[in-house]
Amino acid sequence: MTKISQFSAKRLNSLDPNGTVFAEYTALANKHKAVNLGQGFPTLHVADFIRKNAAEAIAHESLGHQYTRSEGHVKLVNALAKYYSPKIGRELNPLNEIMTTVGASEAIYSTIQALVDPDDEVILMQPYYDSYPASISLAGGKPVIVSLKPKANGVSSSDWRLDIAELKKAITSKTKIIMINNPNNPIGKVWSRDELMQVADIAKEHDLLVIADEVYETLVYSDSESPMIKFASLPDMYERTITIGSMGKMFGVTGWKIGWVIAPPEITRASWLVHQFLPFSVVTPLQEAGANSLEMAMTNGYFEDTTKTYQKLRDKLMKTLNDVGFHPMKPDGGYFIIANIAPFKVQEDFSAYLTKTVGVTSIPMRAFYQKNSHGEVQHYVRFAFCKDEATLDEAGKRLTEYFTK
Amino acid sequence: MTKISQFSAKRLNSLDPNGTVFAEYTALANKHKAVNLGQGFPTLHVADFIRKNAAEAIAHESLGHQYTRSEGHVKLVNALAKYYSPKIGRELNPLNEIMTTVGASEAIYSTIQALVDPDDEVILMQPYYDSYPASISLAGGKPVIVSLKPKANGVSSSDWRLDIAELKKAITSKTKIIMINNPNNPIGKVWSRDELMQVADIAKEHDLLVIADEVYETLVYSDSESPMIKFASLPDMYERTITIGSMGKMFGVTGWKIGWVIAPPEITRASWLVHQFLPFSVVTPLQEAGANSLEMAMTNGYFEDTTKTYQKLRDKLMKTLNDVGFHPMKPDGGYFIIANIAPFKVQEDFSAYLTKTVGVTSIPMRAFYQKNSHGEVQHYVRFAFCKDEATLDEAGKRLTEYFTK
Repeated sequence: MTKISQFSAKRLNSLDPNGTVFAEYTALANKHKAVNLGQGFPTLHVADFIRKNAAEAIAHESLGHQYTRSEGHVKLVNALAKYYSPKIGRELNPLNEIMTTVGASEAIYSTIQALVDPDDEVILMQPYYDSYPASISLAGGKPVIVSLKPKANGVSSSDWRLDIAELKKAITSKTKIIMINNPNNPIGKVWSRDELMQVADIAKEHDLLVIADEVYETLVYSDSESPMIKFASLPDMYERTITIGSMGKMFGVTGWKIGWVIAPPEITRASWLVHQFLPFSVVTPLQEAGANSLEMAMTNGYFEDTTKTYQKLRDKLMKTLNDVGFHPMKPDGGYFIIANIAPFKVQEDFSAYLTKTVGVTSIPMRAFYQKNSHGEVQHYVRFAFCKDEATLDEAGKRLTEYFTK
Repeated sequence: MTKISQFSAKRLNSLDPNGTVFAEYTALANKHKAVNLGQGFPTLHVADFIRKNAAEAIAHESLGHQYTRSEGHVKLVNALAKYYSPKIGRELNPLNEIMTTVGASEAIYSTIQALVDPDDEVILMQPYYDSYPASISLAGGKPVIVSLKPKANGVSSSDWRLDIAELKKAITSKTKIIMINNPNNPIGKVWSRDELMQVADIAKEHDLLVIADEVYETLVYSDSESPMIKFASLPDMYERTITIGSMGKMFGVTGWKIGWVIAPPEITRASWLVHQFLPFSVVTPLQEAGANSLEMAMTNGYFEDTTKTYQKLRDKLMKTLNDVGFHPMKPDGGYFIIANIAPFKVQEDFSAYLTKTVGVTSIPMRAFYQKNSHGEVQHYVRFAFCKDEATLDEAGKRLTEYFTK
């Protein structure tokens, strides 16, 4: 473990000095030459039209390589307004209701810095993405945790539910924001209208903001219990919702590091006040490529095709995990499957064990839970299926050989 | 002016709700179709080998578009270690003494978040880059200002000096960091060894860290009073120096948004603890392109050629500004010229006036000073000369026609 400087600010004490578990397990996977189904980066080919748009943007001789508008490349915010206006059910103003960011991570970080004062409380639902509590703590705020819980013998992501009484109980006079992740990572839960409305009612009653992290919104499968419903589209919710999106997830280009915030002008402006001094602006040529790709994807069937491709990959990995006795829960959205590995009677470190002995890497469920609060789900691990068929085949081969021999 | 949300965190009160002056004057320039010598983005063609490297990185089919190592693309940190080790005078470990960031802005922000506690004091020398005080305030710290001052009738950036007695006086028990910008933006001052050693002695005596923002390091001109000396190369300074660098400045690609931090492992790790939850990682394909470009630039004469090109552009703009009676001060480094426009007896808003009436945009000197503390230099404005010849010719034509007719 690397030591942290004695000069460090106290806010770092809230963070694990070892860093995120994703980097840790990717390093472990590399060390053991394991098939990495841990970190959620796609290994599928990036679509030709997207790479062609990137190549054209890179071919610019001068201004296409310089700072663009700090709030977001005009072409990209225009394309985003066109794409999202019908989904949210209102005409978005691209110039003051949308801001592009360095991936969804920076969108989350800058928004929380802009809205959370020391001692403000933010409600998180675990399992959650690990940048949420970190961003809240770095702002001096307090993450307040409620848990999604699986039905006994549940087999699908929709079997995980929020206990609304627990959410109500978590609210205090200091609560400022509820964060919701739909589709959820790691579960793949796609929230139903009824469930979302229960959260909306509470937000309205207590005058709370809602950060809706919807980065997996384009990956909701044909057999999902519910369609994708954007939180900001619910009655009276636009005014209090900050929607987070991601080009990395939308186009399978996580390394482009482009995301966005959609919110009413006053909130977008608050996030931007932080953003301007943080990256100032986002990578220009790839924002242009992303804008052109989004314009094309709105008519060329890209989203439909991609969802079908991912659904097949999901079904392939579901079959493998079922065959080897892992008790996977079918996700309605996103590109992860959680699996219950209780039958194997291995402890905590099943992900490390699987990496070392079988050569397949997953992420332990504790990564998505507050420290020592994952008792109920300690026998779950998360697998990513955003991988090419050959990768999933190799993982399947290794798992099958080891567990069914 | 856009309103800021009532939900905003109090830390935003330290920021100007209008945002940075650079965006403001670029918008004004666009509105009046003025030649924009305000914001420092180059309009020169990006070198062919750099664009070719970018095109090759973009051509990757899958993994080249995904998240890379959070601490920095391995190829890029390796190239940076090779480039900087001889300049700093020690073998840098690319894996734990260098971190890549979303431009120098994020490097500054993440480092300050990692090191500055509420009420810690950070010494800034004005004129300064405006993200310094903002980053300090957002961390809850207190910017403590000392001023560089021009000699009476000075004609060169080296005529601006720091009064060391003033620096000593500014130090208290709460001082944690001194920030130094070399070459300085906006002045273009390249610090001499004697001047740097005076700062180093104070840092050592009071056990302070030094953030050395050296983003313009490759642009130091042949007639500079001093060569470029990296702060981290001074005796005993490596241990307490955080060096900030920028690919945008190095290769004239400000829109790629790639920068770096170089520091001892414990400090790099502290900055990374913030960085991992902020952008998580930096744009993958352009980090690869930058790595390959830096490898090539170390032998193909790029830096020498570019410095010569910029020196000619500097001399061209110096001549224009002299001819129209603006009293410019010749910069030893960087790509800005400050000019004293006192003879014109126009107030504060000379930059706005010049944009509207002459069609040439500059940045007022107050942008680089603490509020209402720029009395001594209220008649200075900053011009950028990182522009193609045609742009500088057009600016020259407009200025000459207006001021010498």
